[in-house]
Amino acid sequence: MSEPLPETLAPARVVDVTRVSADGVSRTTDMAATEEPLDVRLHGQSFAVIMRTPGRDRELAAGFLMSERVIRSADDLGAVEHCRHPDQRRAHHVVDVFLRGGAASRVPALLEGRRQVVANSSCGVCGRATIEELAADIVPLGSRPPVHVDVLRGLPDRLRTTQRTFTETGGLHGVALFSAAGDLIGSAEDVGRHNAVDKVFGALLLADEAGPDPAVLVVSGRVSFEIVQKAWIGGVAIVVAISAPTSLAIELAHEAGIALLGFVRGANLNIYTHTARIAGV
Amino acid sequence: MSEPLPETLAPARVVDVTRVSADGVSRTTDMAATEEPLDVRLHGQSFAVIMRTPGRDRELAAGFLMSERVIRSADDLGAVEHCRHPDQRRAHHVVDVFLRGGAASRVPALLEGRRQVVANSSCGVCGRATIEELAADIVPLGSRPPVHVDVLRGLPDRLRTTQRTFTETGGLHGVALFSAAGDLIGSAEDVGRHNAVDKVFGALLLADEAGPDPAVLVVSGRVSFEIVQKAWIGGVAIVVAISAPTSLAIELAHEAGIALLGFVRGANLNIYTHTARIAGV
Repeated sequence: MSEPLPETLAPARVVDVTRVSADGVSRTTDMAATEEPLDVRLHGQSFAVIMRTPGRDRELAAGFLMSERVIRSADDLGAVEHCRHPDQRRAHHVVDVFLRGGAASRVPALLEGRRQVVANSSCGVCGRATIEELAADIVPLGSRPPVHVDVLRGLPDRLRTTQRTFTETGGLHGVALFSAAGDLIGSAEDVGRHNAVDKVFGALLLADEAGPDPAVLVVSGRVSFEIVQKAWIGGVAIVVAISAPTSLAIELAHEAGIALLGFVRGANLNIYTHTARIAGV
Repeated sequence: MSEPLPETLAPARVVDVTRVSADGVSRTTDMAATEEPLDVRLHGQSFAVIMRTPGRDRELAAGFLMSERVIRSADDLGAVEHCRHPDQRRAHHVVDVFLRGGAASRVPALLEGRRQVVANSSCGVCGRATIEELAADIVPLGSRPPVHVDVLRGLPDRLRTTQRTFTETGGLHGVALFSAAGDLIGSAEDVGRHNAVDKVFGALLLADEAGPDPAVLVVSGRVSFEIVQKAWIGGVAIVVAISAPTSLAIELAHEAGIALLGFVRGANLNIYTHTARIAGV
């Protein structure tokens, strides 16, 4: 059902990693889930840009349009196909959809005045373009004194002590901000991981007086492109995740000058980017 | 930092549950993380509706506007406050934001032609209104023969056997559709759980010939409002999750006639709604 993909569009990619464990530090490689933007176009015009794992993109476009109530059944769908651009890497990040019958007649109204959400859809048709656009817009992170790996190792446990509602429900993402000395600056829980990050940074915006500078963002789950973007906008140079990062999160962290750590569990952790920001490894 | 909340806006709610284990079946209660829409308004007009866990809503609004690059610093923020509606339950689902200086002058352009994403923002200012709007639009799920609990218990393991990339990366959400007899109809993986659901339903829309009717949607993680909405649109009457459902997922499943199961692990599972769709309990 899925079409053959160029190698760069595989669902996972090989990434370099510095692995730290009780036995020491090693340079090795790991696999990261691929995250790239997909442009869903209606009758040739961009309707939505979705951060997704490449593969089954036609199915994603059709299901997305059904979820958004743009179509009501398969009868509304005409052609659904990847863009015929000669550059396969570009063509595979665009799906062109043409509707039929009454659904087709609604397309102009659907597209009219469609102003897309800034963060996800100001991007071009590949992750590289997205990152370059952000880099032109966000203040670079300067040099900072490195933070010791032993401080970072202890932060997931300290995040968990702030997660009161998770303990009750098992249903929330937790996020916390720490200073370079490891002091807790703020924490938040939410059903949406993006919301939890917005809450901790938003609290700093609303604070009456400045406290210590936030240095480390700790998240309870996986790390996507958008989480790293929020850290960058918030001026934080170290992101610590208990679970896996996506390929585009790693690429953006590399560009932004952010040290991205994943699978931080007990004595073990992986450093994907900017190891120089971490002391003791 | 956070304001006192009416009890209905607590971060978690008591929900009824039918708990099935090796020891038998019991009716009990559990806590579910609260999910409700928040309307972020700019100068009195809706800018975005975010599904979130109530609490620290002002912080969420400020952080969200920073992430979306609507503001560049705290200096751009004027008043950020809950709507002054006399009904506390309504007022607490709306945050009014007023910007200052140059940011304020950009507000008309930001709002002009802002067409919001259908699924999340056609809703009113509370989850109840959101559900009623969907109920007016989606075909009701009729009666179906019940599916035996022993069939459902086995599905998470069968989902895992389809998750090739997760095994490599630990970084993807997995989703699968099964028939009432427990036959695999389709599966998908994605960094976004919504994408994975759209892919499996989209594959049915693009299929050249009809196969068995999808009866059960199995998801690898948590279940939000939107996942249940997609199942409803897809005509599926049973949703099985390996982790926790949100409060609004449960409310929507109740309204939609969907049996929602969570924490389906080994012999244990929780049934939150429409137990009559499950045989053997």
